[in-house]
Amino acid sequence: MNPRPKHRSPPLTAAYLQSPPLSPPPHAPKAFASKMPRKSFTRPTLAIAVLLVLITLYSFLLYAPPNYNTNTSINLGNDRRFRSPDGREVRIFMYDLPRRFTYGIIESYAAARGGRAAEDDAHLKYPGHQHSAEWYLFSDLNRPAGERVDSSVTRVMDPEEADLFYVPFFSSLSLIVNRIRPVSNFSQDGAVYNDEQTQEDLMEWLEEQVYWKRNNGWDHVFICQDPNALYKVIDRVKNGVLLVSDFGRLARNQASLVKDVILPYSHRINTYKGDVSLENRKSLLFFMGNRYRKENEKDVIIKHGAQSRESRRAASQGMHSSRFCLHPAGDTPSACRLFDAIVSLCVPVIVSNYIELPFEDVIDYRKIAIFVDTNTAVKPRYLVKLLRRVSPEKIMEFQNELKKVKRYFEYEDPNGTVKEIWRQVASKLPLIKLMSNRDKRIVVRDLAEQDCSCLCSNQSRIHTTL
Amino acid sequence: MNPRPKHRSPPLTAAYLQSPPLSPPPHAPKAFASKMPRKSFTRPTLAIAVLLVLITLYSFLLYAPPNYNTNTSINLGNDRRFRSPDGREVRIFMYDLPRRFTYGIIESYAAARGGRAAEDDAHLKYPGHQHSAEWYLFSDLNRPAGERVDSSVTRVMDPEEADLFYVPFFSSLSLIVNRIRPVSNFSQDGAVYNDEQTQEDLMEWLEEQVYWKRNNGWDHVFICQDPNALYKVIDRVKNGVLLVSDFGRLARNQASLVKDVILPYSHRINTYKGDVSLENRKSLLFFMGNRYRKENEKDVIIKHGAQSRESRRAASQGMHSSRFCLHPAGDTPSACRLFDAIVSLCVPVIVSNYIELPFEDVIDYRKIAIFVDTNTAVKPRYLVKLLRRVSPEKIMEFQNELKKVKRYFEYEDPNGTVKEIWRQVASKLPLIKLMSNRDKRIVVRDLAEQDCSCLCSNQSRIHTTL
Repeated sequence: MNPRPKHRSPPLTAAYLQSPPLSPPPHAPKAFASKMPRKSFTRPTLAIAVLLVLITLYSFLLYAPPNYNTNTSINLGNDRRFRSPDGREVRIFMYDLPRRFTYGIIESYAAARGGRAAEDDAHLKYPGHQHSAEWYLFSDLNRPAGERVDSSVTRVMDPEEADLFYVPFFSSLSLIVNRIRPVSNFSQDGAVYNDEQTQEDLMEWLEEQVYWKRNNGWDHVFICQDPNALYKVIDRVKNGVLLVSDFGRLARNQASLVKDVILPYSHRINTYKGDVSLENRKSLLFFMGNRYRKENEKDVIIKHGAQSRESRRAASQGMHSSRFCLHPAGDTPSACRLFDAIVSLCVPVIVSNYIELPFEDVIDYRKIAIFVDTNTAVKPRYLVKLLRRVSPEKIMEFQNELKKVKRYFEYEDPNGTVKEIWRQVASKLPLIKLMSNRDKRIVVRDLAEQDCSCLCSNQSRIHTTL
Repeated sequence: MNPRPKHRSPPLTAAYLQSPPLSPPPHAPKAFASKMPRKSFTRPTLAIAVLLVLITLYSFLLYAPPNYNTNTSINLGNDRRFRSPDGREVRIFMYDLPRRFTYGIIESYAAARGGRAAEDDAHLKYPGHQHSAEWYLFSDLNRPAGERVDSSVTRVMDPEEADLFYVPFFSSLSLIVNRIRPVSNFSQDGAVYNDEQTQEDLMEWLEEQVYWKRNNGWDHVFICQDPNALYKVIDRVKNGVLLVSDFGRLARNQASLVKDVILPYSHRINTYKGDVSLENRKSLLFFMGNRYRKENEKDVIIKHGAQSRESRRAASQGMHSSRFCLHPAGDTPSACRLFDAIVSLCVPVIVSNYIELPFEDVIDYRKIAIFVDTNTAVKPRYLVKLLRRVSPEKIMEFQNELKKVKRYFEYEDPNGTVKEIWRQVASKLPLIKLMSNRDKRIVVRDLAEQDCSCLCSNQSRIHTTL
């Protein structure tokens, strides 16, 4: 439930920097440059004529209209971002929240653990217990515009231009500021930090904002990765796009796959650097956690482990050397254990009937994981028997697919989680625009139940996807 | 309920053709060409050097990587189509349905009205009673690929490449084949045309298709513009994207704003060609239809009128010369009268509490129409009093906005309805992909109610948007 990102230093800068090749690719200009030393232009006017033809051709390619075939394919390759309904790029405005809702929380968190106040926000460190997404999304939007050109959301500094509004409240960190030693946690003005009060204060501030009122919050994006984040005010933010880990503690009229985005936790153990293989994976099944269950099979490793450095080392070793990794539901349907398994190339065996999965529009999880329903999975020896029947070829297939998709679960990969989250947020825009327009013109009606637009799925009768 | 499109000939071709400028725009090459006659290049090698620099610059612009600023903005301007979740263009496959589900229906329709079978499908005429969308979408996808490059969906001929599958069954026409003289309507093999049976037969055919089975129908698109179209099999197609006029006769688990697309009816009366003005609009309010209500106001025109050429002429005259046009709910929440008003620049007064409106993600209907709830609107003299209070400036504002959006309601405009429908269909793709992936990995669960993802709106308490 409390993912600990491995990297505690402020992230991104180096990894995200993409250096565009500042000189043109060699093949184009070289064709001309290489002719210079040869002095083959005996008649300069002819040379000029030839060059003019070439320039014309280049200019033509350069200025060809959009529906002209050659250029269209160039565009297709280049710009793969989502569009707003009117065809523009999707524009996001990040609120410049009062400091107490962002850096101030880091400070309170540090203070509660005996740290001192930093003199400068730039010296504030990313606290290890902060949920990754709230830090990474904030940092990402703070990057220079030039580094963000391939993001699905373009940051704008004028809210009037924005399609979406990001509220970068560190809601998950706020939740745990006081967990360790609540009594000693005084902020600079001497008051004890209070998460619930901070949530209320945020809403008081937000509800005064003209852009919040304008569209009833439909176009606002909130990060609440911890299943308890924002719980006190969830009914006041429920129109917005919520970035969450699962819907375990949210009602159907508060959050849904249609409106919100499921985020991955960041993995805690190291990414497996080796290639796909069965050789290096002698264990059949691995699980480590707070629950303990006996399995009398020598290649099934069920370990007890709490949050500690040693546990993490043992988990890393176990996941890197097992073929399957068990992922049962805990107190919530999701947990970072799943993402540890994925980056370990250890095929997840998901026993969590109500789990929602990140980026499921681009990831077919049946290709990377095995799903088993809870009642079936607890039958004695069922799981182990099931997994022993999986052929080596099938396991290799799973591993190959895991390798393809693992970038989606790397917050630090420039082509990874952060980019995907924004893509998903951007894809909500047509529905957001529709709902904000519609809400404002709806007149009073006799409705027996709430006015909901739904996407309903059929009840499944399968016990496992294998 | 039965829109009659004005234009009965097969549509599109000429209007949709866009001729790309085949020569480069004048400013670039001219810069060089104009220097030629001046013979200012006394030293050709210097001239070559200058040209080389310029060529290098051009090549650089041409080959600059996608995330390089200059080129990005060029791309933004050029390609405004929606993307599939993986960043490609959205690809649609149109089923080559057995003839009896498309042209065969036109033939049966003609036969029921005493027409003869056409020798060639190319000679089949667009029947005036067919709902426009089913004909126009079919014709649009049949256009050569080169004419469709700015569409939000690219047609592919290989179903394996497709994101979406279009089922071009003429469902609304099928519904009315037998309405006029059922007995005499024999098809070529002598059987009476039967709409219900045709629906069943379509499903029998479709349910055998491998791509239908693959994703449980989530990625299939159906046209059912008449509120009764496909009614017999609606539960079998409900996973698909339904192109409908309203949700009046559809249950919440069959259709919704989230999954489906609201289409406009095509207007029956002529588009108003004049400019915005109050001068030419002396009447306050116009309504024509089957219901009759007395209003003792000399500038309020309430007329009785059924479907006929004279009625249409009278409606056209009335809508072109009134400031407001009444749009009450009929037997369904939607009707083509609304779209007649819009293209007439006559401000719609919508008294239809459950109406859903086309393209509401890009159109803010409060800017072009006035909404009044049913109970309030029927109070004696309420409406007329309300409308008399609207200032001339406000009416001009409404008219200006109507003028801006009326292209969305023109099926024949290359930048009109057809393009918008495909844009909306394309924007559903992330959710479609998500639902098809998710459905296949969901295991058996204990659910008290159906598994639905919803977007819920607040109950409104306003009586009018004015």
